[in-house]
Formats: sequence, structure tokens, C-alpha cells
Amino acid sequence: MTGNIIGERFVVVSFGESHGKCVGAVIDGCPAGLELSEADIQKELDLRKPGLSSVTSPRMEEDRVEILSGVFEGRTTGSPICMLVWNKDVDSEPYRMFVNRPRPGHADYVARMKYGGFADWRGSGRFSGRITASLVMAGAVAKKLLSKTLGVEIMAYTLEIGGVRAKNFTLEDVRNKRYSNEVRCPDEAAAYEMIKRINEVRDEGDSLGGIVECQVFGLPIGLGEPIFSALDSDLSRALFAIPAVKGVEFGAGFAVAKLLGSQNNDPYAIVDGKVVTLTNNAGGILGGISTGMPLIFRVAFKPPSSIAKKQTTVDLDSMKEVEISVKGRHDPTVVPRAVPVVEAVVAIVLADHAIRAGFIPPVLRC
Amino acid sequence: MTGNIIGERFVVVSFGESHGKCVGAVIDGCPAGLELSEADIQKELDLRKPGLSSVTSPRMEEDRVEILSGVFEGRTTGSPICMLVWNKDVDSEPYRMFVNRPRPGHADYVARMKYGGFADWRGSGRFSGRITASLVMAGAVAKKLLSKTLGVEIMAYTLEIGGVRAKNFTLEDVRNKRYSNEVRCPDEAAAYEMIKRINEVRDEGDSLGGIVECQVFGLPIGLGEPIFSALDSDLSRALFAIPAVKGVEFGAGFAVAKLLGSQNNDPYAIVDGKVVTLTNNAGGILGGISTGMPLIFRVAFKPPSSIAKKQTTVDLDSMKEVEISVKGRHDPTVVPRAVPVVEAVVAIVLADHAIRAGFIPPVLRC
Amino acid sequence: MTGNIIGERFVVVSFGESHGKCVGAVIDGCPAGLELSEADIQKELDLRKPGLSSVTSPRMEEDRVEILSGVFEGRTTGSPICMLVWNKDVDSEPYRMFVNRPRPGHADYVARMKYGGFADWRGSGRFSGRITASLVMAGAVAKKLLSKTLGVEIMAYTLEIGGVRAKNFTLEDVRNKRYSNEVRCPDEAAAYEMIKRINEVRDEGDSLGGIVECQVFGLPIGLGEPIFSALDSDLSRALFAIPAVKGVEFGAGFAVAKLLGSQNNDPYAIVDGKVVTLTNNAGGILGGISTGMPLIFRVAFKPPSSIAKKQTTVDLDSMKEVEISVKGRHDPTVVPRAVPVVEAVVAIVLADHAIRAGFIPPVLRC
Amino acid sequence: MTGNIIGERFVVVSFGESHGKCVGAVIDGCPAGLELSEADIQKELDLRKPGLSSVTSPRMEEDRVEILSGVFEGRTTGSPICMLVWNKDVDSEPYRMFVNRPRPGHADYVARMKYGGFADWRGSGRFSGRITASLVMAGAVAKKLLSKTLGVEIMAYTLEIGGVRAKNFTLEDVRNKRYSNEVRCPDEAAAYEMIKRINEVRDEGDSLGGIVECQVFGLPIGLGEPIFSALDSDLSRALFAIPAVKGVEFGAGFAVAKLLGSQNNDPYAIVDGKVVTLTNNAGGILGGISTGMPLIFRVAFKPPSSIAKKQTTVDLDSMKEVEISVKGRHDPTVVPRAVPVVEAVVAIVLADHAIRAGFIPPVLRC
Repeated sequence: MTGNIIGERFVVVSFGESHGKCVGAVIDGCPAGLELSEADIQKELDLRKPGLSSVTSPRMEEDRVEILSGVFEGRTTGSPICMLVWNKDVDSEPYRMFVNRPRPGHADYVARMKYGGFADWRGSGRFSGRITASLVMAGAVAKKLLSKTLGVEIMAYTLEIGGVRAKNFTLEDVRNKRYSNEVRCPDEAAAYEMIKRINEVRDEGDSLGGIVECQVFGLPIGLGEPIFSALDSDLSRALFAIPAVKGVEFGAGFAVAKLLGSQNNDPYAIVDGKVVTLTNNAGGILGGISTGMPLIFRVAFKPPSSIAKKQTTVDLDSMKEVEISVKGRHDPTVVPRAVPVVEAVVAIVLADHAIRAGFIPPVLRC
Repeated sequence: MTGNIIGERFVVVSFGESHGKCVGAVIDGCPAGLELSEADIQKELDLRKPGLSSVTSPRMEEDRVEILSGVFEGRTTGSPICMLVWNKDVDSEPYRMFVNRPRPGHADYVARMKYGGFADWRGSGRFSGRITASLVMAGAVAKKLLSKTLGVEIMAYTLEIGGVRAKNFTLEDVRNKRYSNEVRCPDEAAAYEMIKRINEVRDEGDSLGGIVECQVFGLPIGLGEPIFSALDSDLSRALFAIPAVKGVEFGAGFAVAKLLGSQNNDPYAIVDGKVVTLTNNAGGILGGISTGMPLIFRVAFKPPSSIAKKQTTVDLDSMKEVEISVKGRHDPTVVPRAVPVVEAVVAIVLADHAIRAGFIPPVLRC
Repeated sequence: MTGNIIGERFVVVSFGESHGKCVGAVIDGCPAGLELSEADIQKELDLRKPGLSSVTSPRMEEDRVEILSGVFEGRTTGSPICMLVWNKDVDSEPYRMFVNRPRPGHADYVARMKYGGFADWRGSGRFSGRITASLVMAGAVAKKLLSKTLGVEIMAYTLEIGGVRAKNFTLEDVRNKRYSNEVRCPDEAAAYEMIKRINEVRDEGDSLGGIVECQVFGLPIGLGEPIFSALDSDLSRALFAIPAVKGVEFGAGFAVAKLLGSQNNDPYAIVDGKVVTLTNNAGGILGGISTGMPLIFRVAFKPPSSIAKKQTTVDLDSMKEVEISVKGRHDPTVVPRAVPVVEAVVAIVLADHAIRAGFIPPVLRC
Repeated sequence: MTGNIIGERFVVVSFGESHGKCVGAVIDGCPAGLELSEADIQKELDLRKPGLSSVTSPRMEEDRVEILSGVFEGRTTGSPICMLVWNKDVDSEPYRMFVNRPRPGHADYVARMKYGGFADWRGSGRFSGRITASLVMAGAVAKKLLSKTLGVEIMAYTLEIGGVRAKNFTLEDVRNKRYSNEVRCPDEAAAYEMIKRINEVRDEGDSLGGIVECQVFGLPIGLGEPIFSALDSDLSRALFAIPAVKGVEFGAGFAVAKLLGSQNNDPYAIVDGKVVTLTNNAGGILGGISTGMPLIFRVAFKPPSSIAKKQTTVDLDSMKEVEISVKGRHDPTVVPRAVPVVEAVVAIVLADHAIRAGFIPPVLRC
């Protein structure tokens, strides 16, 4: 299979470019009978769109989703669901220069080399963060499917931006507060500091990285097909498909390097007649299979590469080093807008695995 | 596709159980004409096998590879290559109790639940580290293919064990010293400390986690198929297929959360007439595509779950909590033995992508 | 992978319904650098559309293709190509009754059973011949790719309709005359008889089956991946995806049952310094691999099931047998309109295999 | 995916060569809990093996299956099932000459060209009918799975050999008599004529083609994923993977070309409270989906290409035309031995689709 397609039984195809006609997705394999409207998808898209706050790009993307196929009388039919948003408010001209003067940290140069100069460079083409709209659309369907059939709840949120880390928050804060501030952080004091830091750095023409954490509740035991479609394998594959991701860790993550086995192992216990673990260093996955405990993992996002600050690059015509300053409406950090994107790709992978493992049937008879 | 199969054009199928007849792999899609002998594979397998040092399990696995198909007159034919090692020196009895009293941190419980009690529990069955022998066999072929056609060099090594981190080492140390000590660490002073720490912890009936770092040289620009088969996506998928992996990061990795864009972006420059970057925070991947710079990434391994120290688990018959102490020949840390396994899965993914991108032809005419 | 997706390296995704908003296709994996315009696709679509002749449905489908992504400055970019035609001139109401009174020979009943009553029944939904527009759009790209890179020529034509078989025609007739008559038959006398037969049968409220033959010139030796992706395997898979196909045969086809080996074997010879076969009973495929001789195969199409003549079916509400007469604008035979569809799916499969075998590179540097 | 792998959820990998060490298969995705022994597989293999009758090759293939993985305590575990037969009684020397003097009608020449001269030519390597042993092994598992879970019964038999066609037989004859004669034909009079014809033709150093028909009972409504994984698409793909197949037709097959819609449409009726069709020209498939009626289809096999009679070929060294006579232990017709192979590949496809459609769960709780 080719690179713009993911999944085995709940398959997502992404298409479109940043400044082309549209960005869209096709889902093949969504069970028939799921209630689905454009509003279900719009709700998620609205969480991703820029221009909403002081900490994101002022680019106005209306991003009205249109469902082109696969839904009839308010329900999925079992046929491919094609959805898209039409592109508007584009200004491609500033990007022309990056073809010959590639932005450090962006995909300009590799895109040119891989596609022989034929890649669409307008708005970074396929290498734009805007492509994540296709993930969010498909993820919205996956989320609804998981929620309606299994009661799965997926919650991502900002854990860290520019060195400021959320520390004091409860699961209830995650549930109720993560979308109550511009940085999608459940710790409001940290959120305040993050916003301050973002504003400082943007004024300097610079940008910030950060970490998104995600928790998933309600998964049954048994999702994942070791060894190569282990649940963590497939989740990480999807997470690294999000632009700017540089690291993924589950449960205790990299901290396991400093733990003893006796500290890291999660002891089993019986609570309310059910087998559970008392800690969750495993992050909800053992042997590549969901344990029935909550999934928990973190995703590191690099600072956006498009910054106003001067940087060194090369002019590919003259083969000389030159300075570049990227003007325009760029996000000073992608972390808040990445929150719904993380939820989306996680939903896509989990929906696929829930179908594969027989937890969701081909037809929802409800 | 199902979970024991990976790849699109260089496809690897893993089969076998820890205490069944054998552990093996089939490769479908290896180009014809590659010189290949059992010695090529044995060399890599020998790096994985236990019993070689004070820091690994004393289980003696002879692990003589046998090529069953796909090689004729010393060269690959283009047909599927089946390879296996026969299992010997097995003692399954100690594992019987884990069916009802699952080891904390191991896959016993999820395996039982997912496969309805039919999973082979002997030696942990498919959830044994022994399954990595299939990865190493397939990886040996991929490595040779990459080396012969593109000159690709893949070098993994221990970066950290039990909180002891390698700090002082050069690329030459990586190349020459990583296999000169029992922990496969290029920093010999750190290696000494790691070994000391392992011995301490083993005596306490406990185990240690750690980090493997890997660098890859010689990759052309253009491997990777964004967005879902981005090179980092597919590498991470394969890395998380290795038992005990809890985190994967590329280049600056999780540290990007604390970097400014101006710090993290790798400036372009021209060196010897070639476009390069002066730093490599990207880890050799931008936009999901290899940049031509070295790949660099890190993989976190948890401490082995099978420890002699007493832990709490549940008895699934009586549904009561009980104590368990895992006796037997278990590794106090998997990190040193994971080093060749990391190289193997990386080779498998890179070979697949090199073929997909047209860098390796279907027939090697040499 | 799911059922609306085909191919490994040149992947086609079909979406849309007969009376939904649109019918479309996404191609992922088309090499970058191919000159491509909507006119290239429109040309093929126009050959498929109804309403053009006395022997097809009078339904007017304007079928203007719109390319939504993957093409920039007149060339493919290497990104997914999404194309669609918007549906117009639909009259769904007549189809409502088939939900409860399934048409004999059509998919009404199985669609209802498989998709739990959620399938879109308007215009037969996904089970309409209209879905072949998605095949033709994708096939148009594949055809152009094959033609530009390898000079491949694909020619399908009507061999038989309603028992009238084309007998007297040369390869030049195929090339020049197949589109010169309404039934796309290279034998004009036979074409005349076919049209007469169609008109008779339509007047009786009945329909006719037939056979499409296809020849392909210019294929190199070596396409096909035995055993399961043998070239005939993958071609037949794609051909049976066309609605109404009931048989596929290559070369001598079913006639081999009556041949001796000495008659059926194609003797090798040297002509103009090249190894060729003097006959082509193999139809251009041996051992699942293209031989370098022309591909030749035949596809049997059943008579359209939607006929005005009275037939017996059941009413699924009352569970009683009832009579049905299908009114409306239905083709009396699909064979002439199937001709470009056969060419399209053949092109899709051949493009995929030509890329897989390394005959077409990921970037066309021309 | 590559060519030696088929299926989505019940995946079969074929490996091995005619005169290499072994021929084998791996199944990934077989549900856990199926009772399975080597005897279950041996039974099917024995039906395929040569040397049993006057009408097959006298080559003695003991073909004792060995299960290497995936079965524990008499049941499948959900892990990959690797099975193989070791090759014995091989005499490769006679095949050496075909490398330079390719047999007409065989794959010698294309194999050499596609694999650059590296293909294993001994016993025709991967292009030997012997490779079908891997299909039969995998098919035996699929058959048992389908039988135990859904009561599916798959019956193939010889319909025609060398122009002699079975005409007088009932379904009971198929069930009881197809394995009672050397040609696996349910019409004993026809069988007698077939055997006579085979013996005549063999004495002349020639060979015969024929047709295998197959009927499948007990399939539920709803298998198949239109459009590209339509049930007939996937069945035909698998059938053309069998060496020597030149045509596949379902139900009325090529005869539809001469039928009117009113003749070909199968009228619905209610029998015993169930919706059925009174005829079965559809062959049990409409719109690519199983209808609940019996599957019925036919497969044309060409006469074996290896014949003693003199034929013309070319010497690839001297590039001159030469005569060739293929000596050795070749089947005068493959039809009788193809009967269990057809059943096997059909079972593989049906098992895959039954799992995909949710009719067989991941774990058999019985």
C-alpha cells in the first residue's frame, strides 16, 4: 500500500494540498448504520482550525466539511465516506521562494528532491500542517464510532510548551478544562505561563515545541496484533504521520530507562471483581495488546520551522549560502492545534483495531 | 494484512514460538541476485543470542540458522526466503503457573484474554524475547542488501542502562567499540558502570531498563512515503514491535519540547558541493522523508518483567491476590541483546523503503 | 485492505454512489511528472457515458471530470490525485420499490442483507454501473502513464453480443474501427447485426449479454508477481470488479480444455533477433508473468438484469412472491459501454505492475 | 504486499521450490481454538500427490506435512501456522537444459528474464506444479475452519478432460463418487472415457487440458467486499494463481453472452420461509457478494506444457531455433490433481472473507 493510506479494516485515505482546491479524506470500511452528520465532523474540525486565538496563526480557514459519499438518510451505508474542506483565503506567493531557498527544518528540500521538482509548493503543498484537516475529518468518524459502540473516550491535551509543563491537574481537569484555554492545557496556571511564553517568543520571531499527552478510557482488553501491528506500533506509526512529531512514548516512556523492574511492573489486583493493575507504567499496553487499563502516551512536537528570525539556508540555483526570514501567518507553536489531531489519529487506529479484533461489527444494528 | 507481517515490497513474516519447534521468518520481495549464505545470517544471530556474557540469561540457544528456500547457488532467487532456528534447551514447566498467575509487566494476562486461553504459554510463546530471532534473521538479509547496493551502515548501541548513560564517545568508538564490551556501549567507562549496576541489581532479583541509540549512514535523500508511511512512522512501527520498547524519538526527540525554532532548525549549508545541514536535530528525517543526513534515533527499553523479587499478582482461578517470584534464566536487562534487534528492524524498514523509492532494483545485476 | 481499494504501488480508491453527490476516485502512487489534464480524463469518460447512441440508456450524464488534487502546473506531483464527476439528472424514486422487491439478477437483495438495510438504494447506490466512472477516471491516468513511459497500447472491443460474434477483423480494424460504430465492434458487418439484435430485444423489454475482448501491445517481459499477484490473477480480480462480468479467459481460454499440449504450446522462434512465440495461446502470460507477446483476453458480460419484461420476485415485507417489471432508462446491453471500462481496469493493473517491476520510476524525468 | 502472500485477515504465505529443501506455507490470522492436527492436512495433501494412479506423474512425493508453529495441544493458538513438506526423490539434472532452451508453454523463459538468471531452475523451481502443495496445506486449514464454524462444504471435480465432458451426474454423485475414480469425475462413464483418452495421448507423448467445476454449499449471504474485493474478484485472483489456469467463469459463465436477461435472471422465490432463487445462473454471487445460494464456477486448465513430443524452441546462447523433447515424469493432464488444489484456494479465499464479514470470530469458543 502507498503512503497516504492507513488501516486494514477501517482504512483512511488522505488527499489534497494546502493551497490546492481542497483537503479531504476517504474512509473505507466504516461499519454501516452509524449515525453521522457533517456537524459531527465540523465539531472536531473547529477545534483544529487556526485564527481562533492569540496563540495560533491568524490564517482564516473556514473549513466547512462537506460529506460527498457514504452517508444516506443520516447514517453510514458501509460504502466509502469521502469528506473534504474547500481551501479559501490562500496566498501562495510567499512560498515560491522556498523552492530554491528551502526553509531550515521544513520539508521544502526533501520534497523537491523526492518528487523531482514536481511537488506543489504552494502553502507547503502536502507538507503543510493543513493536511491534518484530513486526519481530523476521518478521526471524527472514528471517534463517534468508538464512542457509540464501545463508549471509548479519547482525551489529548497540552502537557508542555516551551519548557512550561502542566503539573497540577486531575482527570476531571482533563475532561473539563482542556478546551477552556487557548493552549488546551488542563492545568490553568501552567496554561497561563505557556501563553505568556508563546507571546514572548512570537514577538522575537521564534517558535516553541511541546508535548501532547493523551489518555484513552473504555478500551476492551485485546486490541492489537503483535508483533508488527502491536497497538503501540500502529499508534506510533499514525502519530509520527503528524507533521512535527519527533517522539512518542507510552506509559512510563523514556523514564523506564531509570526504573527497576520491581518499580516498573504494574502489580495485578482485583477491584470490584475485575482484574486491574494498581499502577499503569505500561500505559495500557502489554505485549502490544490493550490491557483494559487506560491508554496513556505522550507525543513530542518540535517548534514550527517557519520563523521570522533570520536563518541560514542555501540558494539551490546559485548553490550559495543565503539568509532567510520566513514571513507570514505561521503558528508560534503547533501544540494546541495538535491536540485534536492527536485524538483523531488515535481514534483512527483504535477504530481499525476494534474492528479487527471483532469488537465492532460490520453493521451496527441499533 | 495481519500482525505478523510487515513491509510492502520487502515483506517479512515472523513465525514460531519460544518453546515450539522453531522460530523463523519468511522474506518475500528480496531482490534476486544478492549473494547470501547462512553465515551472513548466523553472524547477526550470534550477536543476539544469550549465554554469552555475565549480563544476559544463561539459557544456551545454539540458534543455528537454516535457510529453507529462496537461495540458490549462493544467491537470492527473487522467491520467498524462509529461514529458521530450531528450538533447543527448553524447559517449559516453570511457565505453566503464569497462565493462572500472570506476571506483572508481562503479556501473560492479555495473551490469555485475547486468544481465549489457546495461546502457547511455554516460554511465553509468541510473547517471548526469543521471537526477536526472527527479526534478526530477516534483518540480516536486509542489512546485507542495503550494504551491497547503497553502502548503508546501521549502528545501534547501548546509550543508557539503569540510569548510567554513555557520554564520552565518538563515531569511531561507535564503529569500533560497541561490540567490544558485554553491554554494547561505545563509552567504555560507562560500560563498566553499567555492568556493575547490572550485577548489583541481578543479585537483588531485580532488572534494569535502558536506551538504545541507533545511527544510520549512507541513506539517499527520498526514502519515506508521507504521510502514513513516513520514514519515522514506519521505523517507529517496527521498533515498537520489539518487546519491551516504551519510547522512540528521532533527532532531538523529546528535547524539542524545550527548544526554540531557531535552535532546533538545522541550517542548510554547502559542504564539498553538496547541500547538507550543519546540525541534525531532525535526526535525518524531515516531512517523513530521509534528508541524506545520518538517521539518528533512540529507543527506550523497559526493565524485564520477569524478576525473582516478590510481586503481587492475582490467581485467575480463585480470583485472589497472590505473591509471585519469577525464577529461571531471565535477562537482568534486555538492552545489550536488543542492540542487534534494533539494527535488524531498522534494516527491514529501510530495505523496504529503498525498494519502494526505486533505489534498489528488483534484480541486482552485479 | 478494504474492498474499494486496489493496487500496491499505483493504488486506486473508488467512492461515490449512483444518485449521491458524486462518483470519484483517488489514485495514490502515481509517479510525479506526468503531464495530466482534465481533458485526458474527459476523453475516456466520454467513451463510457450513456445517452450517446440508440443502444444505450438515454440517461444524460454530463460527467464533467474535476481534478481536486495531485496535479500542479499540468503535471502530477506524486501526491494523491482525487477526481470526481458530480451526479446530475437523477431520478431516484423508481428505485425505492426494489428495496422490498429485489430485482432478479441485481444486487438489491444481497446489498440489503450485507449492509443491514443501510445501503443507499437510490439508483442502485454502489451497485450501479455508474460506479464504473470511477474506474474510467483512474484508468485514464494509468493509460496515459503506460503510454508515455512504455508505449503501451490497450484496445478492448466488442467481440460478441447476444450470440452475434465478430469474426472478420484485423488488428488494424481493432485500432481504427472499434469506436466507429455504436457497439464498438471492429467487424462492421457483425456490428450491424448486433445493433439489429439489440433493438429487437429492447422492444421486447429484454436485454443481451456479450463478450469484450482486449489486446495489449508494448508490455515488457516481466510484469506479474507469482503466485498470488500473477498478472492474470490481478487482471482477473480487477475485471470481475466490473459489474455484470461472469467470466474471464486468457489466450486460448476455455478452449484449452479441448487442445493437446502440442497444439496449445506456443513454439519459440527468433524474429528480428528477438525471442518471440509463433502463436499466442498463452495470451501473453506464462507462469503469471508477461511474456512480451501481446496480452489477449476475453470478458463475458451478462445481460442487464433491469428489464421491462415481467419477472418473479418476492416482497420482503409480506414474504410473498410478486411480479416485477423494471421501468426506466436501462441499457439493453452493457457491452459497448463496458469496452472503455475494461480498458480502464486493465490499465490500472498494468500501471501498478509496471511500477512494481521497476519499469516505471517514481519520478518521470522528461 | 508482494506476490507470495494472499488474504487480508486469513493470510497465506507460500514458500519453497520444487527441488529445494521444502515447500511450505505460513497462515497468519487463523482464529485461535480450532482443533488441528497434521492428519487434517495430510488428508488433503494425499489427494494432491502424484504417483497414485495411471494418469499422473510417477514421481513419488511422500509429502508428509510437518506443522512447525501455531498449534498447541491440538488447537490453533492465533499465532502464525507454519507448515511444510520436505522435498525428496528429486532429480534436477533434466531441467538444466531448459535454462537455455526454454520449454514452449512453460515459464522457463519469463522466469529467466524476470529474475535475471537467478531463478532456481531445478524442477522448475517456483514455477512447478509442486508449489500447489503449499496451497493445499493452507487450504486444508481453511477448509476445516469453514466446516467447523459454518458447515461450509467445498466440492471440486473434473468436468472435462480432452474434450470428454461429464454430463450425467447428480449432486450426490459429486459428493460420493468424485474421488472414486482416477480422474475425480462424478460421471463414471465419462471418467472411463477420460482415462482412455489420457492413456492414448500419453502414449503419443502429448498432454490434455480440461475443466474443473466447483460447488460450495453452506455459505451465508454477505461474503465479498465490492468492488475490488468482490467475492468473484478474489476467488478468480486465487484461481489464476494455480499454474495452468487459463479461464474462470461463475454460474452461467461465458454462456451469458448468448442469454437474454429474462433467461439469465434468477427469479426470487420463498421456499421453506427463506428467500431463494429458483435458478442459479449467478453462481451464488450477485454484485460481488455471496447470495446464500450455492457457489458454482468452472476453471479451465491447459494441457501440461512438458511433453515428450518434439517442439520448436530457441537456444538462448546461440540464438538459434532448436528442437526439444521433454522427457521425465510429467503429468499427461493436471486436471485430476488440480481438483484438491481448486478446493484449497477456494477455501482460503472464503475463510478470509468469512472472517472479514464477521461470520467467523477471532477466537472459537467451543
